[in-house]
Amino acid sequence: MAHDADFRRELGQQLRVDSIRTSAAAGSGHPTSSMSAADLMAVLIDGHLRLDYTNPDNPANDHLIFSKGHASPLYYSVLKAVSAIDDEELLTFRKLGSRLEGHPTPRIPPTDVATGSLGQGLPIGVGVAMAGRSLDKLPYRVWVLCGDSEMAEGSMWEAFQHAGWEGLDNLTAIIDVNRLGQTRETMLGWDLDGYVRRIEAFGWKAIAVDGHDVEAIEAAYAEAEATKGQPVAIVAKTMKGRGVKAVENELGKHGKPLDDPEGAIAELGGERSLSVDVAQPEPGTPHVFETPGGELPSYALGDEVATRKAYGETIAALANLRGDVVALDGEVSNSTHSEDFREAHPDRYFEMFIAEQQLVAAGVGMQVRGWTPYVSTFAAFLSRAYDFVRMAAISRAKFVLSGSHAGVSIGEDGPSQMALEDIASIRAIHGSTVLQPSDAQQTAKLVAALADQDGISFIRTLRAKTPVRTAPDEDVRIGGSRIAHEGDDVAIIATGITLDEAVKAAERLADGGVKARVLDAYSIKPIDAEAVRAAARDCGAIVTVEDHAPEGGLGDAVLEALAAGDEQAHVVKLAVREIPGSGTPEELLHGAKIDADAIADAAQKLVATPA
Amino acid sequence: MAHDADFRRELGQQLRVDSIRTSAAAGSGHPTSSMSAADLMAVLIDGHLRLDYTNPDNPANDHLIFSKGHASPLYYSVLKAVSAIDDEELLTFRKLGSRLEGHPTPRIPPTDVATGSLGQGLPIGVGVAMAGRSLDKLPYRVWVLCGDSEMAEGSMWEAFQHAGWEGLDNLTAIIDVNRLGQTRETMLGWDLDGYVRRIEAFGWKAIAVDGHDVEAIEAAYAEAEATKGQPVAIVAKTMKGRGVKAVENELGKHGKPLDDPEGAIAELGGERSLSVDVAQPEPGTPHVFETPGGELPSYALGDEVATRKAYGETIAALANLRGDVVALDGEVSNSTHSEDFREAHPDRYFEMFIAEQQLVAAGVGMQVRGWTPYVSTFAAFLSRAYDFVRMAAISRAKFVLSGSHAGVSIGEDGPSQMALEDIASIRAIHGSTVLQPSDAQQTAKLVAALADQDGISFIRTLRAKTPVRTAPDEDVRIGGSRIAHEGDDVAIIATGITLDEAVKAAERLADGGVKARVLDAYSIKPIDAEAVRAAARDCGAIVTVEDHAPEGGLGDAVLEALAAGDEQAHVVKLAVREIPGSGTPEELLHGAKIDADAIADAAQKLVATPA
Repeated sequence: MAHDADFRRELGQQLRVDSIRTSAAAGSGHPTSSMSAADLMAVLIDGHLRLDYTNPDNPANDHLIFSKGHASPLYYSVLKAVSAIDDEELLTFRKLGSRLEGHPTPRIPPTDVATGSLGQGLPIGVGVAMAGRSLDKLPYRVWVLCGDSEMAEGSMWEAFQHAGWEGLDNLTAIIDVNRLGQTRETMLGWDLDGYVRRIEAFGWKAIAVDGHDVEAIEAAYAEAEATKGQPVAIVAKTMKGRGVKAVENELGKHGKPLDDPEGAIAELGGERSLSVDVAQPEPGTPHVFETPGGELPSYALGDEVATRKAYGETIAALANLRGDVVALDGEVSNSTHSEDFREAHPDRYFEMFIAEQQLVAAGVGMQVRGWTPYVSTFAAFLSRAYDFVRMAAISRAKFVLSGSHAGVSIGEDGPSQMALEDIASIRAIHGSTVLQPSDAQQTAKLVAALADQDGISFIRTLRAKTPVRTAPDEDVRIGGSRIAHEGDDVAIIATGITLDEAVKAAERLADGGVKARVLDAYSIKPIDAEAVRAAARDCGAIVTVEDHAPEGGLGDAVLEALAAGDEQAHVVKLAVREIPGSGTPEELLHGAKIDADAIADAAQKLVATPA
Repeated sequence: MAHDADFRRELGQQLRVDSIRTSAAAGSGHPTSSMSAADLMAVLIDGHLRLDYTNPDNPANDHLIFSKGHASPLYYSVLKAVSAIDDEELLTFRKLGSRLEGHPTPRIPPTDVATGSLGQGLPIGVGVAMAGRSLDKLPYRVWVLCGDSEMAEGSMWEAFQHAGWEGLDNLTAIIDVNRLGQTRETMLGWDLDGYVRRIEAFGWKAIAVDGHDVEAIEAAYAEAEATKGQPVAIVAKTMKGRGVKAVENELGKHGKPLDDPEGAIAELGGERSLSVDVAQPEPGTPHVFETPGGELPSYALGDEVATRKAYGETIAALANLRGDVVALDGEVSNSTHSEDFREAHPDRYFEMFIAEQQLVAAGVGMQVRGWTPYVSTFAAFLSRAYDFVRMAAISRAKFVLSGSHAGVSIGEDGPSQMALEDIASIRAIHGSTVLQPSDAQQTAKLVAALADQDGISFIRTLRAKTPVRTAPDEDVRIGGSRIAHEGDDVAIIATGITLDEAVKAAERLADGGVKARVLDAYSIKPIDAEAVRAAARDCGAIVTVEDHAPEGGLGDAVLEALAAGDEQAHVVKLAVREIPGSGTPEELLHGAKIDADAIADAAQKLVATPA
């Protein structure tokens, strides 16, 4: 049951006091950025939020995301007010081992995702709201507390745009316009109208409100809840450090505990011990998609099929077997071939347009709700969302990224479209899986396996057709590899498009009496370390070849596998060492010295060199 | 001299015909996306653009950026119409060795930057316009042709926001609203009012216009040129494939040459050979900043100084010596210490707020004009602009990125603020330089050296103070290293914060009779391969230790240096292998097993292992 305005004002003061206390105990943190939003949160938890904190897994629960993750003292003070944590734990903030990290992470339930890199909470909230409406088909609401500084992030406007376009009336953004950034006033300061105009231009309803007037806040939330057909933003004028003269509305008070916490707490009327029974959600069960069954695609040996095509066919087939699989694309579905999914399962496909941050964020939001998203665009353009991928790992998120059109082998379109740093960047993400199949058969098996793979998975697909070399009954697995050509004079470790070139080189070397083993490293992380070491042991010399920059890709993965073992081998890395231009795929592979000619040359030289 | 409307209509048709011809000759490309904007460009080059194509280096030239880089057939057709290239070269489009790549790059003057990853041209144009107003102090105008699909990119709204806030009236965006994306209609379709509302909400003037009415376009450009105090967007309703029935306003015609180019050319009235004398700019000379001289900072041995502080002090001093140095920050200047520059040189400092894509894009734009930008934020948040860094390399851009607060050693703030993938991701960028000094003295020398370093440089700075171990007169250089502790039983290669830990470990090992060499790899790319190999030769075993993910960082750089040589060594990589939480820096370094304890353990084990 909601309380009266006096209670809510008191609750706001308690949230301020606890924000000060927890930051003081930590010796760091952002109390002033918490104090500005305290009244907004007090009214939210007392009568609007519907979240069973005793059962964070209740599928009908509302979601509360602190996009301004640095207001973690407030977030944890809320958790205490709703009895999700006790006061003792509140004071462990930022200490080693505490669930209350400097910025919220899912280590403390019911936190959905890690925030703290600004501009991510709202786009992820859009993904959760999309899941609520189109997948779960449950009436839960997504509340996102946003800062005003983060309104400068383009990703916020991707979120406003997408939510406005979808008319997500189950999403409410609460903008804490406290005017002050880390070093200066924000661009808009307290120009609430400026925010309202921008937000409304993107199809939302925007309500300007005094963020310290609990009655006005109540009215705004009620209006948000009653609004149909469009999302609502509460644009709240607030004061940083509200209620404590030494810091209220003062510059230079960002991101530090108060100098005199005792005095500040006294000024706020002292500690309180109010607790709130947060409203329970109406019971509800998530929608279940029908799974008619069927088979994964299989490809005949020797068929020429692009791995991107196999990707599309496989996710479409997989969704017939698994109700949890969904697909999202950045308006290139006829290139990535997620169009096959879209056509087969339009109710589980989401067009995210050319907005890669929102694309990935929507995937993160949907996996919060237990869905298994396959998120596709050109591999080069996943770099646009790299910070979202980084943060998703901290969120312990589980989803699949599919990047097509990798490397110089795309040909004429030129370097802007060629992913050459994708393996390096995603391989460095904690707990990631990085795959690059060389044929359609491998692709089908790996794409299916990724549905059960924890963490962030990346599958790199090819524009060009490649011949199917993997038999339907062959073992293909994450962490595996296959020998595409037998030999023990020299090993060639290839991946993706270069596998074909490696086989051609091996055939040419065989004509000259050199027996080259070709290892198809379709799994780059984890790499098949045993197969790599066996290659070193048996062959003594290794050529690695990849359509990628020399740093951080297959070559480095091979060196790492060798370093971790006892085998020694000469390793020559072939990779793309100059900025490519346009040309045919063959010309560009040749120019980059990663084609059969270059591989055969490098292998020949290694064989001629005494080990 | 500008021509009449009939000429301009004819010129528009010529640009269409040439766009079709060049795509047909290439067998690929985006003629329909070119045809929609042909009239817009015809009017622009005939009377509005002021650009001496015979002298692309004329500092008074206007700038024309194709943010929709896939309209390269139109761009190159414009270059032919202004006699910058001839018809023969026009037909080399997308062929190996041609300057006319699939998407524009600076290989063909006067192209400023590579485009083709959507949503980048406008933010870079903002940077050029900022340079025009605040650095060069020249009246050149920046014209940016934007697509409507790319209006979905958040980076576009960072650009609208920043340009609106700065009131950049030397910037004109031309939005080619042809309604159709790659696979479907855009979110707004032909809702010109929707674009106008959004753009105006960000402080611009927006003019809706029929993009095929040359007289209306003329009026709109004239109004843009006459507008003071705010940037102007021309929101032009156009048709994709305009003028050719088979493709005009049709879905499914994106990114492919026309089926019947001959027929299409006939339908457009055949080939033409109009040429345009583009208006010359008024002569002008860029502003020169005064350089009072002075010294770079120097630090006494044993002083405790954070490298981020040395960064700020050095760029501030460097600007007294070099008039080309400018600084930009993402509203964390008191953390990165670019505030030292801001205070000393407010006329060369640019506050970019929490909008990292626009932050980096502004740096790219300023270096187009010959300035040397130092661009800073938390290293973790540079990941937000990773696609801009990738594209900047293709633009052959030269600037410095400074990322502070790297790794677990920042402590309490937790993983969202900890860059752990930055070295890997930036090391994979073509031609990049990656540095991580361990002390203030190194920082000062390296920051100064980077002003003359080609390509994209990244310097990773530390939150915590570290002791100065490098003497003022020591040689510190890109590609260098220093031995911080002598020994030949085992080598420890460290960088940044781990150098201190490595020295502590070496001292502890010395107590046990083990002589450890500590190599300070302050230059990670290029790494001092000779010093690494000498360590392998002399010591036989190497421990690498970094406050970074295990993949793609220092450890991999060391393995790569060894692979390229004849020396063999056991290498153990110490790196951050679990997602960190909050804690003190010491606790987190210990927990990640990259502190002195872990290093000494690893070294001890290696020494005990037979080589």
